[in-house]
Amino acid sequence: MDINQTLPQVDLPPNMIHLGLGQPSNHLLPIKELEKAAAHCLSKENSFFLAYGEERGNANFRQTLAEFLTGQYPNPVDPGQLMITNGNSQALDFICTLFARPGDTVLVEEPSYFLALRIFADRKLNLVSIPVDDNGMVTDVLKKKLETLKPSFLYIIPTYHNPASVTLSFKRRQDLVKICAQKDLLVVADEVYHFLNYTDDPPPPMGNWIDKCPLISLGSFSKILAPGLRLGWMHTSPDLIKKMTMSGLIDSGGGFNPFTSEIVNSVISLGFLKANIQRLKNVYHQRIKIFCDQLRIHLPDQAVFKVPQGGYFIWVRLPDNIDTKSFRKAAQKQNVDFHPGALFSHKKGLKNYMRLSFAFYDEEVLAEGARRLGKVISENLS
Amino acid sequence: MDINQTLPQVDLPPNMIHLGLGQPSNHLLPIKELEKAAAHCLSKENSFFLAYGEERGNANFRQTLAEFLTGQYPNPVDPGQLMITNGNSQALDFICTLFARPGDTVLVEEPSYFLALRIFADRKLNLVSIPVDDNGMVTDVLKKKLETLKPSFLYIIPTYHNPASVTLSFKRRQDLVKICAQKDLLVVADEVYHFLNYTDDPPPPMGNWIDKCPLISLGSFSKILAPGLRLGWMHTSPDLIKKMTMSGLIDSGGGFNPFTSEIVNSVISLGFLKANIQRLKNVYHQRIKIFCDQLRIHLPDQAVFKVPQGGYFIWVRLPDNIDTKSFRKAAQKQNVDFHPGALFSHKKGLKNYMRLSFAFYDEEVLAEGARRLGKVISENLS
Repeated sequence: MDINQTLPQVDLPPNMIHLGLGQPSNHLLPIKELEKAAAHCLSKENSFFLAYGEERGNANFRQTLAEFLTGQYPNPVDPGQLMITNGNSQALDFICTLFARPGDTVLVEEPSYFLALRIFADRKLNLVSIPVDDNGMVTDVLKKKLETLKPSFLYIIPTYHNPASVTLSFKRRQDLVKICAQKDLLVVADEVYHFLNYTDDPPPPMGNWIDKCPLISLGSFSKILAPGLRLGWMHTSPDLIKKMTMSGLIDSGGGFNPFTSEIVNSVISLGFLKANIQRLKNVYHQRIKIFCDQLRIHLPDQAVFKVPQGGYFIWVRLPDNIDTKSFRKAAQKQNVDFHPGALFSHKKGLKNYMRLSFAFYDEEVLAEGARRLGKVISENLS
Repeated sequence: MDINQTLPQVDLPPNMIHLGLGQPSNHLLPIKELEKAAAHCLSKENSFFLAYGEERGNANFRQTLAEFLTGQYPNPVDPGQLMITNGNSQALDFICTLFARPGDTVLVEEPSYFLALRIFADRKLNLVSIPVDDNGMVTDVLKKKLETLKPSFLYIIPTYHNPASVTLSFKRRQDLVKICAQKDLLVVADEVYHFLNYTDDPPPPMGNWIDKCPLISLGSFSKILAPGLRLGWMHTSPDLIKKMTMSGLIDSGGGFNPFTSEIVNSVISLGFLKANIQRLKNVYHQRIKIFCDQLRIHLPDQAVFKVPQGGYFIWVRLPDNIDTKSFRKAAQKQNVDFHPGALFSHKKGLKNYMRLSFAFYDEEVLAEGARRLGKVISENLS
């Protein structure tokens, strides 16, 4: 078996175990369910979803999605609070077009999702970061920063953070909303991992507070169904949706993904989404156990990490004087790889960290990866 | 029958004939073919297209598309010259992100596609226009303008222009390429109507000259298959593709539409695309005959237009002192509507024009629309 599954964005030597990869295993992509859903939706007489779509997304899909989210969240979601996107990367890009200009300041977390940082860099935005601790973004620091700064928006990954794997506490969520309401600061919450909890439920998603401060909660089918669909949603206030649907891009192209939306509408209606999420949670939970056990066995004591409660990632901290990037080549020589911490810092800090993930490989491969990584780290700490 | 087909972006009174609408009739959207194509592609074992896609688009889809285009164009197209998009609106938006900054100058035609103008407005671009005559953009004026201006790019609709319905002549294409090569000016050619010719073949698409000057030719499945797919392509040089695939948006989300790409790959492989284009050409050609006949009968002599050789549009000119917008309300009262000329001018000129289309309504409705429109124009010219 080719452990690297010959996926399009994964171009690796056959025996390499790249523990940094943040995408699901090929065999976890539910093609049979999509086949049934496509047959279900395309056998209909009504082909409205082949025309230019409603600006905010197909009405019936938003209805189905709102019902699904209402079943998952502590508070009801209304279809009028949803706008369909091509996934969170496109949503972030779109938000940059509408809410920021080159040179504007945007607040991010330290660490933050490295490819969001790249999207912001393409827009020539000026990034300022707020540190993250075990309870997520340190809201006291945010408050302080906002005494002098006037950012265009704040980008946060509140739940099962990428890469830090921490979750913003309920108390901090309330603080964040209060602070941003006072300053009229738009919060862009990337909640892509919200449904992937392996222990207790997380706090309510930030979408819970859309009537309390300017806030867009980004959801996606990439982690709970398939990234190749390029489908997601924004959960936000009707006022912000109205503003966004008036953009030239939407006016010209119509809603973002009407065809795929209708197929995913069938996926949800046929009950496949709920079943798929449960299946993923079972698989990932099992992987975490094995992987963390093996990491504890093979990594030296100076490599510290917490067992993730959800999401995709393990964030490993090494002693302050270590730059994980410095032994990446040595790791690759031993057929193991990781994402060095500095990737996740807009100011190239966090050099002593590395991001690992258990989304892509099966347990056996993860165990072997942990063994190889332990060896490399041990050799480079001594 | 509801003549307005209750489409998502079409919110009209039931008896209104909106001759401005530039989208295909509902019954021309090939849902049965898409059903078969989805079954064909989703019954496969390999689900690579559900993962994050290759940055420039699925390799096998680009291969299929290149073969298709090679069969249609005078010169061969290589898969390495193609990058898949979410349709031309998204492609334009993406090009703005990568090649322009707010305040930059962009050259457009006068007239130009009104929603492209909106996309550029969202980016706070400074628009300068080049006039269009019966042979398309007047390249002598372009040359003159470029003596003083340094635009970020030039946006042109070379074939079956929206709204002017003219086609850039072969000679002008060569001029354009020569001028832009000299000035190293990026040409963005929106070639969405290229395949919809109703008489002779048009000149070669601008993609023919990608090795002669910086040029991106935008193609789309919106007009030849279905707008709701949100799928298109760029035909350009490998160098420009490399630059674009290095953007943060692509790095984060992967290729733009891998799932839908694979379904359309099956559409093409099964021979449905070629058949669908032929069907559309037959239908539209027939509609043009009837509609133009009726317009000639009912419109007063001062309303001048040419029979379109391809595309979607008829561009009607009224006497210079007429503002077509001034009688739009009167038209709506008589249950007919159109797009006034000023929409297509970034400087609100062209007031004495109107855009009509035959893409949305059947012949009978078009004939009735021509009758109603003739009455309104006659009343407002006297």
